[in-house]
Amino acid sequence: MKLYDLAGAEDDLRFSPNCWRIKMALEHKGLAAETVPWRFVEKDIIAFSGQKLVPVLVDDDKAVSDSWEIAKYLESAYSDRRSLFGGRAGEGLALFVKFWCEQTLNRIVLRIILPDLFACLHEKDKAYFRESREARFGTTLEQYALPPEQGVSLLRDALTPMRSTLQRQPYLAGAEPNFADYIVFGSFQWARAVSLAALVEAGDPVFEWRERLLDAFGGFARTARHCGA
Amino acid sequence: MKLYDLAGAEDDLRFSPNCWRIKMALEHKGLAAETVPWRFVEKDIIAFSGQKLVPVLVDDDKAVSDSWEIAKYLESAYSDRRSLFGGRAGEGLALFVKFWCEQTLNRIVLRIILPDLFACLHEKDKAYFRESREARFGTTLEQYALPPEQGVSLLRDALTPMRSTLQRQPYLAGAEPNFADYIVFGSFQWARAVSLAALVEAGDPVFEWRERLLDAFGGFARTARHCGA
Repeated sequence: MKLYDLAGAEDDLRFSPNCWRIKMALEHKGLAAETVPWRFVEKDIIAFSGQKLVPVLVDDDKAVSDSWEIAKYLESAYSDRRSLFGGRAGEGLALFVKFWCEQTLNRIVLRIILPDLFACLHEKDKAYFRESREARFGTTLEQYALPPEQGVSLLRDALTPMRSTLQRQPYLAGAEPNFADYIVFGSFQWARAVSLAALVEAGDPVFEWRERLLDAFGGFARTARHCGA
Repeated sequence: MKLYDLAGAEDDLRFSPNCWRIKMALEHKGLAAETVPWRFVEKDIIAFSGQKLVPVLVDDDKAVSDSWEIAKYLESAYSDRRSLFGGRAGEGLALFVKFWCEQTLNRIVLRIILPDLFACLHEKDKAYFRESREARFGTTLEQYALPPEQGVSLLRDALTPMRSTLQRQPYLAGAEPNFADYIVFGSFQWARAVSLAALVEAGDPVFEWRERLLDAFGGFARTARHCGA
């Protein structure tokens, strides 16, 4: 298997939250994939997938894009392995967690890490990133960024339902993580790869949850390269 | 089975969101329960449960309180009936939906319906309700209420992740509802019993979802008494 994975200034700087979801899902299923560093402007390299974004997973002669579709593909193609969703209700509710994560958390995380993220991009991606994001935000990257203390305060508040859940059980999906956990964890890995901002503090159940996932699969996510490190 | 269920000015005006969760859960499992109208000040009547809030379910010689605990009790005691959670991941993620609903939606819904809700209380509950809630809110009921248009706009925004989910599948839990759906539906029934505010509009996937649950179990929830009706 081959996974096209967004990379930054260095080939082994991998910060895409959506790619992290799939790297954790592959570990969860015990599947090995070669990850291929890819940059935003390299649309031609993934043109075979019929769209322009990573992650793209190539499994034998099959190409699947979109992290949600890839997770469903892995669950179905490798149904003999540990389940990523834990059944239909687990899958249905993981979709809600996906949208909550994207529409609530990711918008805040992005505004916290934006200057750091920009600094960590590959040189060939910087003009593309600035132009496409400034069109989307309707303002400059610099204006869109939040002062870190303000952003972190908003984020900790937005994490309230997740914090209450993790006060009662170790993972969002209960006693064991499922894809919903990897979705939200991807957002923390995105920040962790490029920024030194402390999104959560020791003692916060969300911090402890992140520690458990950093330790998972032999510390797979913990060893990920930090920008400039 | 007997369910102690919060009632308002009339015995059959039942508006508690947490009690609605359980009434839907009982229907889901195909279980019959006699509901007993109860008011906030009648703490002595449920003292046997060791706490002061409804819902309280009495099943034979067992009393269970707290809607989450009652749902888990029903799932375990009636495991031969249709599952309320759809497995462990479905249960784990339903807990996240519970906290999201309580900490995000319910706070807004309450501020929209507060004057109507107060007007629909039984006379003997009004002083207790005003005193306990004003202590909790740190202000008067009148000050805490939001102008309906402002509240509804906040609510529709807060519903965004739920709306995106329901654009892709009929229920939060996927193709079939689970307890997570009943948790959020309870909040809509709370508003519907006491207020004429249109929380969601026809065409909104959340509206269509609510319609499906109003139709469920032979229109069980649709026939519920409205205050003053």
